[in-house]
Amino acid sequence: MLGVVGGRLPRVANLACPGFRFAGVASGIKGDDLLDVGVIAADAPATAAAVFTRNRVAAAPVVLSRALLARTRGRIRGVVVNSGNANACTGPRGVADARRMAALGREVCGGHALIASTGVIGRPLAMDRLTSGIAAAGAALAPDGFARFAEAIMTTDKRPKVAARDVALGRRTVRLVGATKGAGMIAPNMATTLTFVVTDAGVSTAALRSLVAAAVAPTFNAIAVDGDTSTNDTLAVLAGGTGQASPRELRALGAALTDLLDDLAHQLIGDGEGVHHVVTVEVRGARSGRDALAVARRIAISPLVKTAIAGCDPNWGRILCAVGNAGAELRPDRIALAIGGVPVVRAGAAVASWSPAAVAAVMKAPAYTMTIDLGLGRANARYLACDLSHDYVTINADYTT
Amino acid sequence: MLGVVGGRLPRVANLACPGFRFAGVASGIKGDDLLDVGVIAADAPATAAAVFTRNRVAAAPVVLSRALLARTRGRIRGVVVNSGNANACTGPRGVADARRMAALGREVCGGHALIASTGVIGRPLAMDRLTSGIAAAGAALAPDGFARFAEAIMTTDKRPKVAARDVALGRRTVRLVGATKGAGMIAPNMATTLTFVVTDAGVSTAALRSLVAAAVAPTFNAIAVDGDTSTNDTLAVLAGGTGQASPRELRALGAALTDLLDDLAHQLIGDGEGVHHVVTVEVRGARSGRDALAVARRIAISPLVKTAIAGCDPNWGRILCAVGNAGAELRPDRIALAIGGVPVVRAGAAVASWSPAAVAAVMKAPAYTMTIDLGLGRANARYLACDLSHDYVTINADYTT
Repeated sequence: MLGVVGGRLPRVANLACPGFRFAGVASGIKGDDLLDVGVIAADAPATAAAVFTRNRVAAAPVVLSRALLARTRGRIRGVVVNSGNANACTGPRGVADARRMAALGREVCGGHALIASTGVIGRPLAMDRLTSGIAAAGAALAPDGFARFAEAIMTTDKRPKVAARDVALGRRTVRLVGATKGAGMIAPNMATTLTFVVTDAGVSTAALRSLVAAAVAPTFNAIAVDGDTSTNDTLAVLAGGTGQASPRELRALGAALTDLLDDLAHQLIGDGEGVHHVVTVEVRGARSGRDALAVARRIAISPLVKTAIAGCDPNWGRILCAVGNAGAELRPDRIALAIGGVPVVRAGAAVASWSPAAVAAVMKAPAYTMTIDLGLGRANARYLACDLSHDYVTINADYTT
Repeated sequence: MLGVVGGRLPRVANLACPGFRFAGVASGIKGDDLLDVGVIAADAPATAAAVFTRNRVAAAPVVLSRALLARTRGRIRGVVVNSGNANACTGPRGVADARRMAALGREVCGGHALIASTGVIGRPLAMDRLTSGIAAAGAALAPDGFARFAEAIMTTDKRPKVAARDVALGRRTVRLVGATKGAGMIAPNMATTLTFVVTDAGVSTAALRSLVAAAVAPTFNAIAVDGDTSTNDTLAVLAGGTGQASPRELRALGAALTDLLDDLAHQLIGDGEGVHHVVTVEVRGARSGRDALAVARRIAISPLVKTAIAGCDPNWGRILCAVGNAGAELRPDRIALAIGGVPVVRAGAAVASWSPAAVAAVMKAPAYTMTIDLGLGRANARYLACDLSHDYVTINADYTT
């Protein structure tokens, strides 16, 4: 059934994770037989840590899931997700619907379940469809169901986005398997979009929270499609193993989690709405890490930089303009810029020999790097950016009509 | 000669202001016989106050003009502007060129002149053309030259933007005459773009500075085309009259200046790059003025709100999402929203009877209002927003190539 929405088959062959079963079914919420309800169930209570949107208009499922993790101290049995409807800005009815969704999740997962919704804001959930969808997903749970789960959480995504890692922890090897979905309203300020990762490692709630916080900062908190943070962003990691990893094992697990989230974040930006170019913005030589991140982010969300990326237009003045707007400590006459490794700006002005044609050629690539050196200190940061294209406008001008 | 760039004739018949002469000429910097050098000359030393970009990568003319106003305590004889080249990110050569431009300005104005440049960033000014252009403008100075001046400061603007006001100060009537230019990189954080106002009122430098600060806040600091603040933004007011207005007269003059800048700001947004809809975002019921402005601004710069405006798509969830991203104090269940006077959201959820078709019809208008009531306090704010359209992408994807 994978591929019914035209998505490519994930490049990862094995998406199983011991101790977990998965499902994705079509409930009718999205229509056209598209998968729109996904369930993850752990065979036994799992440790969970999550980060949620910082948008103050948080959707009902975000409010409930945040409270659930606090109440259960991060011990849950699964995750239930629907796509096609965000259950955001739906008032008291939305809260009641989210409670019902959590109750249905408890039934099919055999214990407390996180819930998440994504899609259109402001419309009531079709609870009849969701109810039968969750029941059907419960019946379909299987160790090899992760690809269908990954497809069931998609909205405007063109393809499912999954990744897996095997990590040696002492003599044992554990797995991390994750899925994410985009593809607009991407500018995380804690976590972005819906992302779920399961592992058969054994980790305490406190240790898992630390791992997630550290892994999210340089990955899902350093990407931007359009600068809008959604009402529903949720990133959750479930660890189903028993025992407790040692500090050394936790470091290995954290490194693998960061690597896996980085992979998913790249896939997310690459499949961003109307995206044709994924640009890694590397900022060096800032006075502080905060300044470096502010500069990288300002470049990544500037509409003028993003349209220049779309047009493969080596209009570097806009990049320096964005640098100046970041609020970071600056000496304009020390700024250096290279695009795809080609030096363009040195000491705040164009390199005498720079060739616009050579840089435009670099910018035609689907992925390249912009390197900005502020020449002030030793702090660095990285952000994933993309173009603002006609396709983005087309996708977003008529989303609900 | 007005209209050579296809601009419409300004709607204001009389753009003269006693004590000032104006000129706009074609120097060849832009080519195609387009006007690109403008001069304002006062018959006697005038009082001047200005606000400049807060972008830390400020262009050479901004750096020089800011210093000039400090050094002369706001006593100057005129303004010299070129369009087609911003003289930004041009290194030591750019500073030398700006100094030369100021020296040429002194010659034709008979004393210290503010300078301003707008256009492409990072290319050296064609000083031979600028030199002969300033000389030609000096020779062409005339009381009726303001329309040509307004045209000479244009870049991607489709039409010149001018406004005039007559104000009764006691038994005397004074004039305010102003021009502005856009049309992208508009998200002021002090002043935006190039804007020049002259008046024959007599005002001290200190009083004029206060008037300008008060008039800029609700006008040019409350508009956004794309959220990017340029390297060259300058708004300057020159008062050429003698004597000193009384406190009551200053209030009248300040009100007229605010009204005139509001007029110019509306023209600026209406002529923004790819703009088809000018939307006034009214925020009410905030806990503080700062919160109200943050919410209004966040809505105005959200790419998802702006694409919904472009598509006349009543996707109000994106508006609430932007509200939630503003960092303001919120109670989501108290938010109300009306679009073009049609109630859409009450208590944070859709009004039961709302008609998407009716709201979509409202959104087809070239100008309408979104009213957001946060239901928390008594603070208000207003912002001018616009759509993010295919035309914006087309204009900006190939600006330099």
